[in-house]
Amino acid sequence: MPSDTLYDAAADLRALGGGRVWSLVVSLFGDLAQGEGDKIDGPVLSAIMAALEVRPEAARVALHRLRNDGWIASEKSGRISQHSLTALGRAESAAASPRIYARPNEGPENWQLVILPKTDPKRQQILNDAGMIQLMPRVFVGPADAPLPRDTFALAASTAPDWVSKQVAPAALEDDYARLRTALEALSDALTDLPSLDPLDTAVLRCLVVHNWRRLVLKYAQPPRALIDPQSDYYKCHVLVSNLLTAYPRPALSDIALNKAI
Amino acid sequence: MPSDTLYDAAADLRALGGGRVWSLVVSLFGDLAQGEGDKIDGPVLSAIMAALEVRPEAARVALHRLRNDGWIASEKSGRISQHSLTALGRAESAAASPRIYARPNEGPENWQLVILPKTDPKRQQILNDAGMIQLMPRVFVGPADAPLPRDTFALAASTAPDWVSKQVAPAALEDDYARLRTALEALSDALTDLPSLDPLDTAVLRCLVVHNWRRLVLKYAQPPRALIDPQSDYYKCHVLVSNLLTAYPRPALSDIALNKAI
Repeated sequence: MPSDTLYDAAADLRALGGGRVWSLVVSLFGDLAQGEGDKIDGPVLSAIMAALEVRPEAARVALHRLRNDGWIASEKSGRISQHSLTALGRAESAAASPRIYARPNEGPENWQLVILPKTDPKRQQILNDAGMIQLMPRVFVGPADAPLPRDTFALAASTAPDWVSKQVAPAALEDDYARLRTALEALSDALTDLPSLDPLDTAVLRCLVVHNWRRLVLKYAQPPRALIDPQSDYYKCHVLVSNLLTAYPRPALSDIALNKAI
Repeated sequence: MPSDTLYDAAADLRALGGGRVWSLVVSLFGDLAQGEGDKIDGPVLSAIMAALEVRPEAARVALHRLRNDGWIASEKSGRISQHSLTALGRAESAAASPRIYARPNEGPENWQLVILPKTDPKRQQILNDAGMIQLMPRVFVGPADAPLPRDTFALAASTAPDWVSKQVAPAALEDDYARLRTALEALSDALTDLPSLDPLDTAVLRCLVVHNWRRLVLKYAQPPRALIDPQSDYYKCHVLVSNLLTAYPRPALSDIALNKAI
Protein backbone atom coordinates (compact mmCIF):
# COMPACT_ATOMS: atom_id res chain seq x y z
CA MET A 1 0.00 0.00 0.00
CA PRO A 2 1.29 3.48 -0.78
CA SER A 3 1.94 5.86 2.04
CA ASP A 4 -1.18 7.33 3.64
CA THR A 5 0.24 10.77 3.17
CA LEU A 6 0.32 10.49 -0.64
CA TYR A 7 -3.08 8.86 -0.48
CA ASP A 8 -4.40 11.96 1.26
CA ALA A 9 -2.48 14.43 -0.90
CA ALA A 10 -3.83 12.89 -4.12
CA ALA A 11 -7.45 12.67 -2.94
CA ASP A 12 -8.68 15.62 -5.04
CA LEU A 13 -6.96 14.35 -8.14
CA ARG A 14 -8.28 10.83 -7.63
CA ALA A 15 -11.80 12.20 -7.34
CA LEU A 16 -11.58 14.12 -10.65
CA GLY A 17 -10.77 11.29 -13.04
CA GLY A 18 -14.27 9.96 -13.38
CA GLY A 19 -15.40 6.39 -13.13
CA ARG A 20 -13.96 4.75 -16.21
CA VAL A 21 -11.42 2.30 -14.85
CA TRP A 22 -10.36 1.03 -18.29
CA SER A 23 -9.32 4.58 -19.17
CA LEU A 24 -7.25 4.81 -15.99
CA VAL A 25 -5.56 1.54 -16.96
CA VAL A 26 -4.80 2.97 -20.40
CA SER A 27 -3.17 5.97 -18.71
CA LEU A 28 -1.16 3.72 -16.41
CA PHE A 29 0.19 1.43 -19.14
CA GLY A 30 0.86 4.38 -21.46
CA ASP A 31 2.95 6.06 -18.77
CA LEU A 32 4.63 3.09 -17.16
CA ALA A 33 4.90 0.34 -19.78
CA GLN A 34 4.87 1.84 -23.26
CA GLY A 35 8.14 0.17 -24.31
CA GLU A 36 8.12 -3.07 -26.31
CA GLY A 37 8.52 -5.98 -23.88
CA ASP A 38 7.38 -3.92 -20.86
CA LYS A 39 5.21 -6.05 -18.62
CA ILE A 40 3.42 -5.22 -15.39
CA ASP A 41 3.12 -8.11 -12.93
CA GLY A 42 -0.38 -8.82 -11.68
CA PRO A 43 0.46 -8.11 -8.01
CA VAL A 44 2.06 -4.75 -8.95
CA LEU A 45 -0.98 -3.83 -11.00
CA SER A 46 -3.25 -4.82 -8.10
CA ALA A 47 -1.25 -2.69 -5.67
CA ILE A 48 -1.43 0.34 -7.97
CA MET A 49 -5.13 -0.13 -8.61
CA ALA A 50 -5.77 -0.38 -4.89
CA ALA A 51 -3.84 2.84 -4.33
CA LEU A 52 -6.04 4.43 -6.97
CA GLU A 53 -9.09 3.27 -5.02
CA VAL A 54 -10.18 0.85 -7.72
CA ARG A 55 -11.86 -2.28 -6.41
CA PRO A 56 -10.23 -5.56 -7.54
CA GLU A 57 -13.34 -6.63 -9.42
CA ALA A 58 -13.54 -3.32 -11.32
CA ALA A 59 -9.86 -3.69 -12.25
CA ARG A 60 -10.52 -7.22 -13.55
CA VAL A 61 -13.48 -6.01 -15.66
CA ALA A 62 -11.36 -3.19 -17.13
CA LEU A 63 -8.53 -5.56 -18.00
CA HIS A 64 -11.00 -7.94 -19.62
CA ARG A 65 -12.43 -5.12 -21.73
CA LEU A 66 -8.99 -3.90 -22.83
CA ARG A 67 -7.99 -7.45 -23.78
CA ASN A 68 -11.17 -7.74 -25.88
CA ASP A 69 -10.33 -4.42 -27.55
CA GLY A 70 -6.90 -5.77 -28.46
CA TRP A 71 -5.20 -3.12 -26.33
CA ILE A 72 -3.69 -5.28 -23.58
CA ALA A 73 -2.39 -8.83 -23.57
CA SER A 74 -2.09 -10.96 -20.44
CA GLU A 75 -0.05 -14.11 -19.96
CA LYS A 76 0.85 -16.41 -17.12
CA SER A 77 4.43 -16.56 -15.85
CA GLY A 78 4.60 -19.19 -13.18
CA ARG A 79 2.07 -18.29 -10.54
CA ILE A 80 1.48 -14.71 -11.54
CA SER A 81 -0.10 -12.95 -14.54
CA GLN A 82 1.87 -10.42 -16.56
CA HIS A 83 0.11 -7.67 -18.50
CA SER A 84 1.48 -5.66 -21.41
CA LEU A 85 0.31 -3.34 -24.17
CA THR A 86 -0.31 -5.02 -27.53
CA ALA A 87 1.25 -3.55 -30.70
CA LEU A 88 -2.00 -1.59 -31.16
CA GLY A 89 -1.94 -0.35 -27.57
CA ARG A 90 1.69 0.71 -27.91
CA ALA A 91 1.02 2.49 -31.21
CA GLU A 92 -1.96 4.42 -29.86
CA SER A 93 -0.10 5.33 -26.69
CA ALA A 94 2.87 6.52 -28.73
CA ALA A 95 0.57 8.63 -30.94
CA ALA A 96 -0.88 10.41 -27.90
CA SER A 97 2.40 10.83 -26.01
CA PRO A 98 3.73 13.96 -27.79
CA ARG A 99 0.61 15.84 -26.77
CA ILE A 100 0.51 14.45 -23.22
CA TYR A 101 4.18 14.90 -22.41
CA ALA A 102 4.91 18.14 -24.30
CA ARG A 103 6.57 20.79 -22.13
CA PRO A 104 4.70 24.11 -21.85
CA ASN A 105 7.45 25.86 -23.86
CA GLU A 106 7.75 23.10 -26.46
CA GLY A 107 6.35 22.69 -29.94
CA PRO A 108 6.61 24.89 -33.02
CA GLU A 109 6.21 28.61 -32.48
CA ASN A 110 5.22 29.15 -36.09
CA TRP A 111 1.59 29.03 -36.94
CA GLN A 112 -0.71 30.11 -39.72
CA LEU A 113 -4.19 31.29 -40.50
CA VAL A 114 -5.97 29.72 -43.44
CA ILE A 115 -9.16 30.66 -45.24
CA LEU A 116 -11.20 28.24 -47.31
CA PRO A 117 -12.70 29.44 -50.61
CA LYS A 118 -16.13 28.34 -49.35
CA THR A 119 -17.79 26.33 -46.61
CA ASP A 120 -16.77 22.80 -47.49
CA PRO A 121 -17.00 19.81 -45.09
CA LYS A 122 -14.29 17.85 -46.96
CA ARG A 123 -11.73 20.64 -46.80
CA GLN A 124 -12.72 21.31 -43.17
CA GLN A 125 -12.07 17.68 -42.31
CA ILE A 126 -8.59 17.87 -43.85
CA LEU A 127 -7.87 20.93 -41.71
CA ASN A 128 -9.27 19.34 -38.53
CA ASP A 129 -7.15 16.25 -39.13
CA ALA A 130 -4.12 18.52 -39.47
CA GLY A 131 -4.79 20.01 -36.04
CA MET A 132 -6.23 23.30 -37.32
CA ILE A 133 -8.81 25.04 -35.10
CA GLN A 134 -11.79 26.88 -36.54
CA LEU A 135 -11.79 30.58 -35.63
CA MET A 136 -14.93 31.51 -37.58
CA PRO A 137 -16.72 30.16 -40.66
CA ARG A 138 -14.09 29.28 -43.34
CA VAL A 139 -11.23 30.57 -41.14
CA PHE A 140 -8.82 28.30 -39.24
CA VAL A 141 -5.62 28.67 -37.22
CA GLY A 142 -3.02 26.02 -36.53
CA PRO A 143 0.45 24.59 -37.11
CA ALA A 144 2.49 26.27 -39.86
CA ASP A 145 3.35 22.89 -41.36
CA ALA A 146 -0.20 21.53 -41.57
CA PRO A 147 -0.95 19.96 -44.98
CA LEU A 148 -3.63 22.10 -46.61
CA PRO A 149 -6.42 21.33 -49.06
CA ARG A 150 -6.17 23.02 -52.46
CA ASP A 151 -7.23 26.62 -53.02
CA THR A 152 -6.59 27.47 -49.37
CA PHE A 153 -5.56 31.06 -48.65
CA ALA A 154 -2.77 30.61 -46.10
CA LEU A 155 -1.04 33.38 -44.13
CA ALA A 156 1.86 33.06 -41.74
CA ALA A 157 0.89 34.45 -38.33
CA SER A 158 2.83 35.58 -35.29
CA THR A 159 0.91 37.61 -32.72
CA ALA A 160 -2.84 38.05 -32.36
CA PRO A 161 -5.15 40.09 -30.15
CA ASP A 162 -6.65 38.51 -27.03
CA TRP A 163 -10.01 37.73 -28.60
CA VAL A 164 -8.34 35.29 -30.99
CA SER A 165 -6.71 33.43 -28.10
CA LYS A 166 -10.00 33.35 -26.23
CA GLN A 167 -11.86 32.09 -29.28
CA VAL A 168 -9.56 29.14 -29.95
CA ALA A 169 -9.33 28.11 -26.28
CA PRO A 170 -11.48 25.06 -25.45
CA ALA A 171 -14.36 26.89 -23.75
CA ALA A 172 -16.21 23.67 -22.92
CA LEU A 173 -13.29 22.52 -20.76
CA GLU A 174 -12.78 25.74 -18.81
CA ASP A 175 -14.33 24.39 -15.61
CA ASP A 176 -12.46 21.11 -15.92
CA TYR A 177 -9.13 22.90 -16.21
CA ALA A 178 -10.00 25.15 -13.26
CA ARG A 179 -10.75 22.09 -11.09
CA LEU A 180 -7.65 20.27 -12.30
CA ARG A 181 -5.52 23.31 -11.49
CA THR A 182 -6.88 23.45 -7.94
CA ALA A 183 -6.22 19.74 -7.42
CA LEU A 184 -2.71 19.92 -8.92
CA GLU A 185 -1.79 22.94 -6.83
CA ALA A 186 -3.02 21.22 -3.66
CA LEU A 187 -1.08 18.09 -4.59
CA SER A 188 2.11 20.00 -5.38
CA ASP A 189 1.88 21.84 -2.07
CA ALA A 190 1.28 18.64 -0.12
CA LEU A 191 4.19 16.87 -1.83
CA THR A 192 6.69 19.45 -0.63
CA ASP A 193 6.04 18.25 2.93
CA LEU A 194 6.35 14.54 2.08
CA PRO A 195 9.49 12.40 2.20
CA SER A 196 10.67 11.20 -1.24
CA LEU A 197 8.28 8.69 -2.82
CA ASP A 198 9.14 5.07 -3.44
CA PRO A 199 8.74 3.62 -6.97
CA LEU A 200 5.19 2.37 -6.44
CA ASP A 201 4.01 5.69 -4.99
CA THR A 202 5.71 7.43 -7.88
CA ALA A 203 3.88 5.23 -10.40
CA VAL A 204 0.57 5.97 -8.67
CA LEU A 205 1.27 9.69 -8.58
CA ARG A 206 2.26 9.83 -12.26
CA CYS A 207 -0.76 7.77 -13.28
CA LEU A 208 -3.12 10.19 -11.54
CA VAL A 209 -1.44 13.24 -13.08
CA VAL A 210 -1.20 11.79 -16.58
CA HIS A 211 -4.75 10.44 -16.50
CA ASN A 212 -6.37 13.69 -15.46
CA TRP A 213 -4.29 15.68 -17.94
CA ARG A 214 -4.73 13.23 -20.80
CA ARG A 215 -8.51 13.07 -20.59
CA LEU A 216 -8.65 16.86 -21.18
CA VAL A 217 -5.84 17.63 -23.64
CA LEU A 218 -6.65 14.77 -26.00
CA LYS A 219 -10.19 16.09 -26.53
CA TYR A 220 -9.15 18.87 -28.93
CA ALA A 221 -6.36 20.20 -31.14
CA GLN A 222 -3.79 22.31 -29.32
CA PRO A 223 -3.88 26.00 -30.26
CA PRO A 224 -0.64 27.58 -31.50
CA ARG A 225 1.65 28.57 -28.60
CA ALA A 226 1.25 32.25 -29.37
CA LEU A 227 -2.49 31.89 -28.76
CA ILE A 228 -2.22 30.32 -25.32
CA ASP A 229 -2.92 32.73 -22.47
CA PRO A 230 -0.19 32.18 -19.86
CA GLN A 231 -2.70 33.17 -17.16
CA SER A 232 -5.24 30.54 -18.23
CA ASP A 233 -6.03 27.53 -16.10
CA TYR A 234 -5.01 25.39 -19.06
CA TYR A 235 -1.52 26.83 -19.10
CA LYS A 236 -1.15 26.72 -15.31
CA CYS A 237 -2.19 23.05 -15.41
CA HIS A 238 0.35 22.37 -18.14
CA VAL A 239 3.17 23.86 -16.05
CA LEU A 240 2.05 21.94 -12.94
CA VAL A 241 1.80 18.65 -14.86
CA SER A 242 5.16 19.16 -16.47
CA ASN A 243 6.82 20.04 -13.16
CA LEU A 244 5.33 17.01 -11.39
CA LEU A 245 6.33 14.57 -14.13
CA THR A 246 9.85 16.03 -14.10
CA ALA A 247 10.12 15.95 -10.30
CA TYR A 248 8.86 12.37 -10.17
CA PRO A 249 10.46 10.53 -13.10
CA ARG A 250 8.99 7.29 -14.39
CA PRO A 251 10.23 4.41 -12.18
CA ALA A 252 11.69 1.28 -13.75
CA LEU A 253 9.18 -1.60 -13.73
CA SER A 254 11.77 -3.86 -12.13
CA ASP A 255 12.17 -1.45 -9.21
CA ILE A 256 8.47 -1.47 -8.48
CA ALA A 257 8.41 -5.24 -8.59
CA LEU A 258 11.39 -5.59 -6.28
CA ASN A 259 10.06 -3.26 -3.63
CA LYS A 260 6.39 -4.01 -3.58
CA ALA A 261 5.42 -7.19 -5.39
CA ILE A 262 3.19 -9.62 -3.51
CA MET B 1 -11.24 72.30 -84.24
CA PRO B 2 -9.16 69.17 -83.64
CA SER B 3 -8.19 66.99 -86.54
CA ASP B 4 -10.97 64.86 -87.99
CA THR B 5 -8.75 61.81 -87.67
CA LEU B 6 -8.47 62.09 -83.87
CA TYR B 7 -12.16 62.90 -83.80
CA ASP B 8 -12.85 59.58 -85.54
CA ALA B 9 -10.28 57.62 -83.54
CA ALA B 10 -11.73 58.78 -80.24
CA ALA B 11 -15.38 58.19 -81.17
CA ASP B 12 -15.76 55.01 -79.05
CA LEU B 13 -14.18 56.62 -76.04
CA ARG B 14 -16.30 59.74 -76.42
CA ALA B 15 -19.42 57.61 -76.50
CA LEU B 16 -18.55 55.77 -73.27
CA GLY B 17 -18.25 58.68 -70.87
CA GLY B 18 -21.94 59.18 -70.28
CA GLY B 19 -23.86 62.41 -70.38
CA ARG B 20 -22.61 64.32 -67.35
CA VAL B 21 -20.81 67.29 -68.84
CA TRP B 22 -19.84 68.75 -65.44
CA SER B 23 -17.97 65.53 -64.69
CA LEU B 24 -16.11 65.81 -68.01
CA VAL B 25 -15.14 69.37 -67.10
CA VAL B 26 -13.84 68.15 -63.74
CA SER B 27 -11.69 65.61 -65.59
CA LEU B 28 -10.40 68.26 -67.96
CA PHE B 29 -9.41 70.79 -65.29
CA GLY B 30 -7.95 68.08 -63.10
CA ASP B 31 -5.72 66.91 -65.92
CA LEU B 32 -4.86 70.20 -67.57
CA ALA B 33 -5.05 72.94 -64.94
CA GLN B 34 -4.51 71.44 -61.47
CA GLY B 35 -1.64 73.82 -60.62
CA GLU B 36 -2.26 76.93 -58.55
CA GLY B 37 -2.70 79.87 -60.95
CA ASP B 38 -3.54 77.62 -63.92
CA LYS B 39 -6.31 79.23 -65.98
CA ILE B 40 -8.08 78.00 -69.09
CA ASP B 41 -9.16 80.76 -71.46
CA GLY B 42 -12.81 80.71 -72.50
CA PRO B 43 -12.06 80.19 -76.18
CA VAL B 44 -9.70 77.29 -75.43
CA LEU B 45 -12.30 75.67 -73.22
CA SER B 46 -14.91 76.15 -75.94
CA ALA B 47 -12.68 74.54 -78.55
CA ILE B 48 -11.98 71.54 -76.29
CA MET B 49 -15.66 71.14 -75.41
CA ALA B 50 -16.58 71.26 -79.08
CA ALA B 51 -14.01 68.57 -79.83
CA LEU B 52 -15.60 66.49 -77.07
CA GLU B 53 -18.97 66.95 -78.83
CA VAL B 54 -20.38 69.02 -75.99
CA ARG B 55 -22.83 71.71 -77.15
CA PRO B 56 -21.88 75.26 -76.02
CA GLU B 57 -25.05 75.58 -73.95
CA ALA B 58 -24.38 72.31 -72.11
CA ALA B 59 -20.83 73.50 -71.41
CA ARG B 60 -22.18 76.77 -69.99
CA VAL B 61 -24.63 74.92 -67.71
CA ALA B 62 -21.84 72.65 -66.46
CA LEU B 63 -19.57 75.61 -65.72
CA HIS B 64 -22.41 77.33 -63.92
CA ARG B 65 -23.01 74.27 -61.75
CA LEU B 66 -19.32 73.85 -60.92
CA ARG B 67 -19.10 77.54 -59.96
CA ASN B 68 -22.10 77.07 -57.65
CA ASP B 69 -20.42 74.03 -56.11
CA GLY B 70 -17.32 76.12 -55.40
CA TRP B 71 -15.22 73.92 -57.67
CA ILE B 72 -14.43 76.37 -60.45
CA ALA B 73 -13.96 80.16 -60.50
CA SER B 74 -14.38 82.32 -63.60
CA GLU B 75 -13.13 85.84 -64.11
CA LYS B 76 -12.95 88.32 -66.96
CA SER B 77 -9.58 89.26 -68.41
CA GLY B 78 -10.16 91.92 -71.03
CA ARG B 79 -12.65 90.48 -73.51
CA ILE B 80 -12.34 86.85 -72.56
CA SER B 81 -13.28 84.75 -69.52
CA GLN B 82 -10.68 82.72 -67.70
CA HIS B 83 -11.63 79.63 -65.74
CA SER B 84 -9.65 77.97 -62.95
CA LEU B 85 -10.06 75.43 -60.16
CA THR B 86 -10.82 76.89 -56.74
CA ALA B 87 -8.75 75.81 -53.72
CA LEU B 88 -11.44 73.17 -53.09
CA GLY B 89 -11.35 71.97 -56.70
CA ARG B 90 -7.55 71.76 -56.60
CA ALA B 91 -7.55 69.89 -53.30
CA GLU B 92 -10.12 67.33 -54.49
CA SER B 93 -8.31 66.88 -57.80
CA ALA B 94 -5.01 66.39 -55.99
CA ALA B 95 -6.61 63.81 -53.68
CA ALA B 96 -7.82 61.77 -56.66
CA SER B 97 -4.66 62.10 -58.75
CA PRO B 98 -2.53 59.37 -57.12
CA ARG B 99 -5.19 56.79 -57.97
CA ILE B 100 -5.85 58.15 -61.48
CA TYR B 101 -2.25 58.56 -62.56
CA ALA B 102 -0.67 55.56 -60.76
CA ARG B 103 1.40 53.38 -63.10
CA PRO B 104 0.34 49.72 -63.29
CA ASN B 105 3.53 48.63 -61.52
CA GLU B 106 3.40 51.37 -58.90
CA GLY B 107 2.19 51.44 -55.34
CA PRO B 108 3.14 49.33 -52.34
CA GLU B 109 3.53 45.62 -52.93
CA ASN B 110 2.97 44.86 -49.27
CA TRP B 111 -0.53 44.15 -48.17
CA GLN B 112 -2.33 42.61 -45.24
CA LEU B 113 -5.39 40.70 -44.26
CA VAL B 114 -7.27 41.84 -41.17
CA ILE B 115 -10.03 40.22 -39.17
CA LEU B 116 -12.41 42.14 -36.93
CA PRO B 117 -13.35 40.66 -33.55
CA LYS B 118 -17.02 40.94 -34.54
CA THR B 119 -19.28 42.51 -37.15
CA ASP B 120 -19.04 46.19 -36.31
CA PRO B 121 -20.09 49.04 -38.64
CA LYS B 122 -17.76 51.55 -36.96
CA ARG B 123 -14.67 49.41 -37.31
CA GLN B 124 -15.72 48.53 -40.87
CA GLN B 125 -15.95 52.21 -41.75
CA ILE B 126 -12.42 52.81 -40.46
CA LEU B 127 -11.20 49.97 -42.67
CA ASN B 128 -13.14 51.19 -45.72
CA ASP B 129 -11.72 54.68 -45.25
CA ALA B 130 -8.24 53.15 -45.15
CA GLY B 131 -8.80 51.52 -48.55
CA MET B 132 -9.40 48.01 -47.19
CA ILE B 133 -11.67 45.72 -49.23
CA GLN B 134 -14.06 43.25 -47.62
CA LEU B 135 -13.30 39.64 -48.56
CA MET B 136 -15.99 38.06 -46.41
CA PRO B 137 -17.82 38.96 -43.20
CA ARG B 138 -15.28 40.45 -40.71
CA VAL B 139 -12.35 39.82 -43.12
CA PHE B 140 -10.66 42.57 -45.16
CA VAL B 141 -7.60 42.91 -47.41
CA GLY B 142 -5.72 46.07 -48.27
CA PRO B 143 -2.62 48.23 -47.89
CA ALA B 144 -0.08 47.08 -45.31
CA ASP B 145 0.11 50.57 -43.85
CA ALA B 146 -3.62 51.11 -43.37
CA PRO B 147 -4.46 52.49 -39.91
CA LEU B 148 -6.47 49.82 -38.11
CA PRO B 149 -9.17 49.97 -35.45
CA ARG B 150 -8.32 48.41 -32.09
CA ASP B 151 -8.49 44.65 -31.51
CA THR B 152 -7.97 43.94 -35.19
CA PHE B 153 -6.21 40.69 -36.01
CA ALA B 154 -3.78 41.71 -38.77
CA LEU B 155 -1.63 39.38 -40.88
CA ALA B 156 0.96 40.33 -43.47
CA ALA B 157 0.09 38.75 -46.81
CA SER B 158 2.01 38.05 -49.99
CA THR B 159 0.41 35.64 -52.44
CA ALA B 160 -3.14 34.37 -52.53
CA PRO B 161 -5.09 31.84 -54.59
CA ASP B 162 -7.12 33.03 -57.58
CA TRP B 163 -10.46 33.03 -55.76
CA VAL B 164 -9.21 35.80 -53.49
CA SER B 165 -8.24 37.97 -56.48
CA LYS B 166 -11.61 37.31 -58.10
CA GLN B 167 -13.47 38.14 -54.93
CA VAL B 168 -11.83 41.53 -54.39
CA ALA B 169 -12.09 42.57 -58.06
CA PRO B 170 -14.93 45.06 -58.69
CA ALA B 171 -17.42 42.62 -60.22
CA ALA B 172 -20.02 45.34 -60.88
CA LEU B 173 -17.58 47.15 -63.20
CA GLU B 174 -16.50 44.12 -65.24
CA ASP B 175 -18.51 45.11 -68.31
CA ASP B 176 -17.42 48.74 -68.06
CA TYR B 177 -13.77 47.74 -68.01
CA ALA B 178 -14.31 45.39 -70.96
CA ARG B 179 -15.88 48.20 -73.01
CA LEU B 180 -13.19 50.68 -71.97
CA ARG B 181 -10.50 48.21 -72.95
CA THR B 182 -12.02 47.78 -76.42
CA ALA B 183 -12.25 51.55 -76.91
CA LEU B 184 -8.70 52.18 -75.64
CA GLU B 185 -7.27 49.44 -77.86
CA ALA B 186 -9.06 50.86 -80.90
CA LEU B 187 -7.83 54.36 -80.04
CA SER B 188 -4.25 53.22 -79.48
CA ASP B 189 -4.28 51.38 -82.81
CA ALA B 190 -5.72 54.37 -84.67
CA LEU B 191 -3.19 56.76 -83.10
CA THR B 192 -0.24 54.82 -84.49
CA ASP B 193 -1.39 55.85 -87.98
CA LEU B 194 -1.89 59.53 -87.08
CA PRO B 195 0.67 62.32 -87.35
CA SER B 196 1.78 63.76 -84.02
CA LEU B 197 -1.00 65.62 -82.22
CA ASP B 198 -0.95 69.38 -81.61
CA PRO B 199 -1.43 70.68 -78.01
CA LEU B 200 -5.22 71.09 -78.30
CA ASP B 201 -5.70 67.59 -79.72
CA THR B 202 -3.45 66.25 -76.98
CA ALA B 203 -5.55 68.00 -74.31
CA VAL B 204 -8.71 66.51 -75.84
CA LEU B 205 -7.20 63.03 -76.05
CA ARG B 206 -5.96 63.13 -72.46
CA CYS B 207 -9.28 64.45 -71.19
CA LEU B 208 -11.15 61.55 -72.82
CA VAL B 209 -8.72 58.96 -71.47
CA VAL B 210 -8.57 60.41 -67.95
CA HIS B 211 -12.33 60.91 -67.78
CA ASN B 212 -13.25 57.34 -68.76
CA TRP B 213 -10.60 55.89 -66.47
CA ARG B 214 -11.39 58.16 -63.55
CA ARG B 215 -15.11 57.45 -63.49
CA LEU B 216 -14.35 53.74 -62.98
CA VAL B 217 -11.27 53.62 -60.72
CA LEU B 218 -12.54 56.20 -58.26
CA LYS B 219 -15.63 54.08 -57.52
CA TYR B 220 -13.82 51.61 -55.26
CA ALA B 221 -10.66 50.94 -53.29
CA GLN B 222 -7.83 49.46 -55.31
CA PRO B 223 -7.02 45.86 -54.41
CA PRO B 224 -3.41 45.05 -53.43
CA ARG B 225 -1.18 44.61 -56.49
CA ALA B 226 -0.66 40.93 -55.73
CA LEU B 227 -4.43 40.42 -56.08
CA ILE B 228 -4.76 42.02 -59.52
CA ASP B 229 -5.09 39.54 -62.38
CA PRO B 230 -2.73 40.72 -65.14
CA GLN B 231 -5.13 39.21 -67.69
CA SER B 232 -8.11 41.18 -66.41
CA ASP B 233 -9.73 43.95 -68.43
CA TYR B 234 -9.01 46.25 -65.49
CA TYR B 235 -5.29 45.64 -65.69
CA LYS B 236 -5.22 45.85 -69.51
CA CYS B 237 -7.05 49.20 -69.27
CA HIS B 238 -4.55 50.42 -66.70
CA VAL B 239 -1.63 49.63 -69.01
CA LEU B 240 -3.35 51.27 -72.00
CA VAL B 241 -4.21 54.41 -70.00
CA SER B 242 -0.72 54.65 -68.61
CA ASN B 243 0.87 54.20 -72.05
CA LEU B 244 -1.39 56.83 -73.66
CA LEU B 245 -0.79 59.43 -70.93
CA THR B 246 2.95 58.81 -71.23
CA ALA B 247 2.96 58.98 -75.03
CA TYR B 248 0.90 62.19 -75.00
CA PRO B 249 2.23 64.31 -72.14
CA ARG B 250 0.16 67.12 -70.69
CA PRO B 251 0.54 70.24 -72.92
CA ALA B 252 1.35 73.61 -71.38
CA LEU B 253 -1.75 75.80 -71.17
CA SER B 254 0.14 78.61 -72.89
CA ASP B 255 0.89 76.37 -75.89
CA ILE B 256 -2.79 75.52 -76.35
CA ALA B 257 -3.71 79.19 -76.16
CA LEU B 258 -1.04 80.25 -78.65
CA ASN B 259 -1.97 77.70 -81.24
CA LYS B 260 -5.69 77.58 -81.06
CA ALA B 261 -7.27 80.40 -79.15
CA ILE B 262 -10.14 82.23 -80.86
